[in-house]
Amino acid sequence: MHTPGMIALELQGTLEFNRTLVLVLDLCGTFAFAVSGATAGVRQRLDLFGVLVLSFAASTFGGISRDVLIGATPPAAFQDWRYLAVAMAAGMIAFYWSTLVERLRNPVRMLDAVGLAFFAVAGTQKALVFGLSPVMAALMGMLTGIGGGMARDILLAQVPAVLRADLYAVAALAGAVIVVTGNMLEAPVLVSAGIGGLVCFGLRMSALRWGWQLPMARGPQPPDGGGKR
Amino acid sequence: MHTPGMIALELQGTLEFNRTLVLVLDLCGTFAFAVSGATAGVRQRLDLFGVLVLSFAASTFGGISRDVLIGATPPAAFQDWRYLAVAMAAGMIAFYWSTLVERLRNPVRMLDAVGLAFFAVAGTQKALVFGLSPVMAALMGMLTGIGGGMARDILLAQVPAVLRADLYAVAALAGAVIVVTGNMLEAPVLVSAGIGGLVCFGLRMSALRWGWQLPMARGPQPPDGGGKR
Amino acid sequence: MHTPGMIALELQGTLEFNRTLVLVLDLCGTFAFAVSGATAGVRQRLDLFGVLVLSFAASTFGGISRDVLIGATPPAAFQDWRYLAVAMAAGMIAFYWSTLVERLRNPVRMLDAVGLAFFAVAGTQKALVFGLSPVMAALMGMLTGIGGGMARDILLAQVPAVLRADLYAVAALAGAVIVVTGNMLEAPVLVSAGIGGLVCFGLRMSALRWGWQLPMARGPQPPDGGGKR
Repeated sequence: MHTPGMIALELQGTLEFNRTLVLVLDLCGTFAFAVSGATAGVRQRLDLFGVLVLSFAASTFGGISRDVLIGATPPAAFQDWRYLAVAMAAGMIAFYWSTLVERLRNPVRMLDAVGLAFFAVAGTQKALVFGLSPVMAALMGMLTGIGGGMARDILLAQVPAVLRADLYAVAALAGAVIVVTGNMLEAPVLVSAGIGGLVCFGLRMSALRWGWQLPMARGPQPPDGGGKR
Repeated sequence: MHTPGMIALELQGTLEFNRTLVLVLDLCGTFAFAVSGATAGVRQRLDLFGVLVLSFAASTFGGISRDVLIGATPPAAFQDWRYLAVAMAAGMIAFYWSTLVERLRNPVRMLDAVGLAFFAVAGTQKALVFGLSPVMAALMGMLTGIGGGMARDILLAQVPAVLRADLYAVAALAGAVIVVTGNMLEAPVLVSAGIGGLVCFGLRMSALRWGWQLPMARGPQPPDGGGKR
Repeated sequence: MHTPGMIALELQGTLEFNRTLVLVLDLCGTFAFAVSGATAGVRQRLDLFGVLVLSFAASTFGGISRDVLIGATPPAAFQDWRYLAVAMAAGMIAFYWSTLVERLRNPVRMLDAVGLAFFAVAGTQKALVFGLSPVMAALMGMLTGIGGGMARDILLAQVPAVLRADLYAVAALAGAVIVVTGNMLEAPVLVSAGIGGLVCFGLRMSALRWGWQLPMARGPQPPDGGGKR
C-alpha cells in the first residue's frame, strides 16, 4: 500500500513525466500538421506568408482550442517558442520544396494521419492531467486531433475533410479512448500513449488503403446535389 | 423591506433556481439545435461521424463560445455528459430517420426557432448570473442563440443563414432583452424567461410565415452578383 | 539610476498611460474594421442585422481572440459598451450610405489598412502589458490585426484575404515588431506605437499601390485550378 508521502512523490513524478511526454508529442504533431496545412496552402497558391499563417493555424489550432476550453491560457503554442519555430520550419520546407512534397505518394494524407495520432494522444493526456473526466478527456483528445485540420479546411473555405473522410475522427477517438482506458487501469503512460497512437495511425491508414467507411446518410437528394446548396 | 439575511437566502434560492432553469433550457436547446445541425449534415451527405460532429458543434457552439467569453471554463458542454448524450441522441435520430425528418414541413427551420428561443433565454440568464451588465448580457444571449447555427453553416462552408435570414438575430435579441428587462424589474425568472422565449419563437416563426424582413442594403451590384465574389 | 520607488511610480504611470493608449487605439481600429466588415456585408447583400453582426464580428474578433488567448475574459469588447456603440455606428453608416462609401476609391482596402495598423499596435501593446514574451507579443499583435478581417471573410465563406494579399500580415507583423523593439529599448510608448502604426499602414498601402508581393508557391497545378478543389 502507498503512504500519502509516496503518493505525492509518485504523482509529482507522473506529472513531470506527463508534461515531457505532452511536449514531445505536441511538437511532433505540430510538425506533421504544419506540413499538411502548408501543403494545402501551396495547392491553393497562397503567398509565402499565407502558407506560413496556414501552417501555424493548422498545426496549433487543435491544441489552442483544447487549451482555451480547459482554461489553460495562454495556450502552450503562445508560451513556448518551439511550437512557432517548428511550424515555421515545416511551412518553409513545404513552400520551397512543394514539388518534391507533392511527388511523394499522398504526402498530405499520411502526414495528416501522423499528426492525428500524435495530437489525439497528447490532447487526451493533457486533458487528463488537467482533471477532466474520462469521457470528456477522450472527446478533448479527439477535438485536439481534428481541430487543426478543421481550421485548415475552414480557412480555405472548404467543408472540413473530417466530416466526410473515412474513419478520420473515429481513428482519433479510438486512440483517445485507449489512452483514457490505460489511465483508468493505471497502465504506464508511455505504453497506453504508444498503443493509442499506433491504433489511431493504423486505423486511419487502413481506412485510406482499404476504403473503410462509416455509413453515409441516405439523404433525399441525389449525390450530385450534395456539394452546394 | 428585506433584511440582509433574507436577501442572502433569497439570492441563494434564486441562484439555485437559475442554475436549474439554465440547465433545463440548455438541454432542450441542445436537442433542437443538434437535430437542426445533423439534418443539415445529412443533406450534405456527410458520413455518420461527420453528422454527429456537426450535431455536437451546432448544438453546443453557442454555449461554448458564451462560456469561453465569460471565462466559465471548461464550458458546461464539456463538464456535463448530458449535453453530449442529448446531442448524440438527436444526431442519431436525424441520421437514421432522415427521410422522415425531411418529410415534415420545414423541420430544420422550426427546430432552429425552438433552439434559438431556448438558447437566447438561457444564454442571457447565465450571463446575468455571471454578473455581466444588462446590455452585454442581452448581446451574449443573442450570441448564444445564433452561435450554434453559425458554426453549423461555417462548417458546411456556407454564409451563415443568420446574416441573411428574416428577423433571425432580431428574434434572439428580442427574447434576450425581455429576460434582461424582467431581471431589472425583479420579475420572477420563470415568467420573464417564458415570455422572452415565446416572443423569440413567435417572432421567428412569424417572420418565416409572413416573410417579415429587415431592410436589405441597396448595394451597387445586381442581386445575382451577390452569391459569390 | 532609478531607485525601486521611482521605478514603481514610473511603472504605474506607464501602465496607466498604456491602458489609455490601448483603449484609444482599440476604438479607432474598431471603427475602421467595422466599416470594412459592414461594407463587405453590404456587397453580399446581407440584411441590416446581418450587416451589423458582420460589422461587430469584423471589428472585435481580433481583439476578442487576443483577450481569450491571453486569458483576459470577459474580452474588452464585452466589458466596455463603447466598442459595441462604435461598431454599430460604423455599421449603420456603411449600411445607409453604402453607395457613397462604395464610390470612394477602394474604401474597404484603405480602411482595412487603417484598422490593421491600429489593431497590430494596440494588440502588441496589450500583450506586452499582460507580460507575454516579445516574440509572442508581436505574434499576438499580428493576430489582433488580421483576426477581424479573417472573421469577416470566413463569415462570408471566402478564403481570408490575408492568406493571399500583398504584404497584409507582413505589414501587421512589421508594426508589431517595432512596438516590441521600442519596448525593449525602453523608448516612449507613444513614439514606438506611432512609428509602428505608420510603418504598418505605409507598408500595406505601398503594397497595394505598387503591387508588392511575397513570393507565391509554384504549385504543381495550373493557376486556374487553384480556386476550388
